[in-house]
Amino acid sequence: QGTRDHAPAQAALRERLLSSVVSCFKRHGAAAIDTPVLELREMLVGKYGEGAKLIYELQDQGGELLALRYDLTVPFARYLAMNKITKMKRYHVAKVYRRDNPATTRGRYREFYQCDFDIAGQFDPMIPDAECLKIVHEILSDLQLGDFVIKVNDRRILNGVFAVCGVPDSQFIPACCTVDKLDKMPWEEVRSEMVGEKGLSPEAADRIGEYVQLHGGLDLIEQLLQDPKLSQNKEAKEGLGDMKLLFEYLTLFGITGKISFDLSLARGLDYYTGVIFEAVLLQQENEHVEEPLSVGSVAGGGRYDGLVGMFDAKGRKVPCVGVSIGIERIFSILEQRLEASGEKFRTTETQVLVATPQKNLLAARMKLISELWDAGIKAEMLYKKDPKLLKQLQYCEDTGIPLAAIVGEQELADGVVKLRDVATRKEVRM
Amino acid sequence: QGTRDHAPAQAALRERLLSSVVSCFKRHGAAAIDTPVLELREMLVGKYGEGAKLIYELQDQGGELLALRYDLTVPFARYLAMNKITKMKRYHVAKVYRRDNPATTRGRYREFYQCDFDIAGQFDPMIPDAECLKIVHEILSDLQLGDFVIKVNDRRILNGVFAVCGVPDSQFIPACCTVDKLDKMPWEEVRSEMVGEKGLSPEAADRIGEYVQLHGGLDLIEQLLQDPKLSQNKEAKEGLGDMKLLFEYLTLFGITGKISFDLSLARGLDYYTGVIFEAVLLQQENEHVEEPLSVGSVAGGGRYDGLVGMFDAKGRKVPCVGVSIGIERIFSILEQRLEASGEKFRTTETQVLVATPQKNLLAARMKLISELWDAGIKAEMLYKKDPKLLKQLQYCEDTGIPLAAIVGEQELADGVVKLRDVATRKEVRM
Repeated sequence: QGTRDHAPAQAALRERLLSSVVSCFKRHGAAAIDTPVLELREMLVGKYGEGAKLIYELQDQGGELLALRYDLTVPFARYLAMNKITKMKRYHVAKVYRRDNPATTRGRYREFYQCDFDIAGQFDPMIPDAECLKIVHEILSDLQLGDFVIKVNDRRILNGVFAVCGVPDSQFIPACCTVDKLDKMPWEEVRSEMVGEKGLSPEAADRIGEYVQLHGGLDLIEQLLQDPKLSQNKEAKEGLGDMKLLFEYLTLFGITGKISFDLSLARGLDYYTGVIFEAVLLQQENEHVEEPLSVGSVAGGGRYDGLVGMFDAKGRKVPCVGVSIGIERIFSILEQRLEASGEKFRTTETQVLVATPQKNLLAARMKLISELWDAGIKAEMLYKKDPKLLKQLQYCEDTGIPLAAIVGEQELADGVVKLRDVATRKEVRM
Repeated sequence: QGTRDHAPAQAALRERLLSSVVSCFKRHGAAAIDTPVLELREMLVGKYGEGAKLIYELQDQGGELLALRYDLTVPFARYLAMNKITKMKRYHVAKVYRRDNPATTRGRYREFYQCDFDIAGQFDPMIPDAECLKIVHEILSDLQLGDFVIKVNDRRILNGVFAVCGVPDSQFIPACCTVDKLDKMPWEEVRSEMVGEKGLSPEAADRIGEYVQLHGGLDLIEQLLQDPKLSQNKEAKEGLGDMKLLFEYLTLFGITGKISFDLSLARGLDYYTGVIFEAVLLQQENEHVEEPLSVGSVAGGGRYDGLVGMFDAKGRKVPCVGVSIGIERIFSILEQRLEASGEKFRTTETQVLVATPQKNLLAARMKLISELWDAGIKAEMLYKKDPKLLKQLQYCEDTGIPLAAIVGEQELADGVVKLRDVATRKEVRM
């Protein structure tokens, strides 16, 4: 349940999608790493907040207690700490596992790929952070998924908001989780969850509401920097200052048109410490729809400066910022689009079928195809001693092979091969 | 235990290796499929003989009882049966899991890659089988691993040998397993295991010994076809007839020089029903060594005509033949070779570093790098506001970036970029 086989058409589409994402990561100078699907259970404990209950555990069959990895970020942090690496730009494309309720039509599975790009190291503020956003922008543009927006916020700004609205420190994370639902439910419901379930005072909730419904650009940052309460809060001030710097860099990258500073963005994971972001696709333009609607998150990430330190015996920190591309949702969009288009999609790359028009010519076919393979040419033949020519040409049409190399008795006698263009039926002897 | 992280150098080497193998599979017209790492436990039961005790099981956390896949062949057979596919040429490159005793220096891990190519379908005899051997030959030649030999045998020939030597049917599989050890121990030890542990009569063991120590080519096939006892055995006769046909096809492919018909080859898995084969690397030529020694199996496979039927409710069979490339052993050979050579191996593909020679030019760097990325050029810059030029050039040398694109105050004023070849220090303004 919640897993799927990939038939050749899906495997080929996925290969195309992943190679587009990986080529962007390589364009930004990242190196690949790989880590095992299995991690020690103790490594995953206390990293995922409420997500922990979704971790797949292996049976105790003697030896170590193991679990399947839940994401690629925690294994990356473990890898950095274990190898005492303090600086690295890496990507990792691999499967992760969550015992979640699958919603397969929307691309939510229990086994799914993650495509992560992360920059670890102590650098000047917001330069790596800006690059992560540039990467999201490049990938979503390359894949032509339609219009999108990248929402940006900062955990420090949120913390500042909660503080100035009178939320006690211990309630920051629960309040964060509730705010994060603002993209799926109206403010009134979020407010009543804050007051009812999380026990915030109605006044605090109302004050929070005034902030978290704001979104905009540089203007909003300037406005909040002047905000009489927020400007007095150290964390908020730092966060807003960095947000301003980030927007400066994004302007140089020419991508602010797709960026929205959105105070409702909170993101679920515990480990974020600074900038957070999430890209959502917007519904295709339609005259009946007044405002573009989000159809779901396709990339997300942020800064997590404390995670590596959790794996280091001496707690040495390595600041990190990274992005994860939500490849499964993108894959299901592309898959549905492909189905709707009725476009025929080749699942093999064969360039030429080696064929014979008469009987008793298997040896000639085998000799020729062997020469082709040795020359690096992608070639097939039917696995029959005496196939009919029509069947051989039909196979080319069915599987999209563009050429047939035909050896008959005449061609053998003349020492030539007849090369036929399957679509045009043109033939040349060579 | 028995798993490993791949650092960038290893990940890059593995990518190079896998892409060489996959390009061979594509050259032969195979399509990719993918299946989950998780399988239902019941699917794996009774497929692996003694291997079953090495299967990783997942904890029962509610829902289905799951296990990690043990190989890619059983999931392929399940896939064919589930989708009622009777004809397919596919490859699959993915990780599999075995709770084995790791021997990591020899490339034996608990998590390891398999690279499988299989042909399913009812075809004329030995044509797909010959192609599998051609693939092994191409891959091992491409990878330049040194001299190798591909041992070939047929389960039907072995069964015939056991039958004419007086071994009861029920003892065929245990006898097979013992014969398979002939590449690791001398005949005397194999004989005593047969008589002692497996309970064969000393006479039967001696008769088996006369056959299973034979190896050769077409001559040996002809000789056995004339053998007064074997020629009376139906299975052996069929196997030998097909073996002769296989050698005919391998002659057309021009690869018999590396093929040895070897009656000691038995292979461990239960599911083989016809041709079996295994490729071993030979020790480098050395005047002190009289006969080349095998340094271990790097590919193996065979025909398994009954496996798909085990997954079909009505037991419908789909004949299959396939090959699995022992990528981990090859990887550890290449890794050791790379280490010994001291060759520096780039782990990134960055073409150009965007650099500045003076302070306060971060904006210029960001603008230029953004243009390069958008043009598809692989570019990096240091994540510092004001890095020293020397540091920037040093980074190029450390990571193998061939070019530096330098924008200084003068270049900005002139509207040019200075492109520097890092190795030769030659510069051009453009």
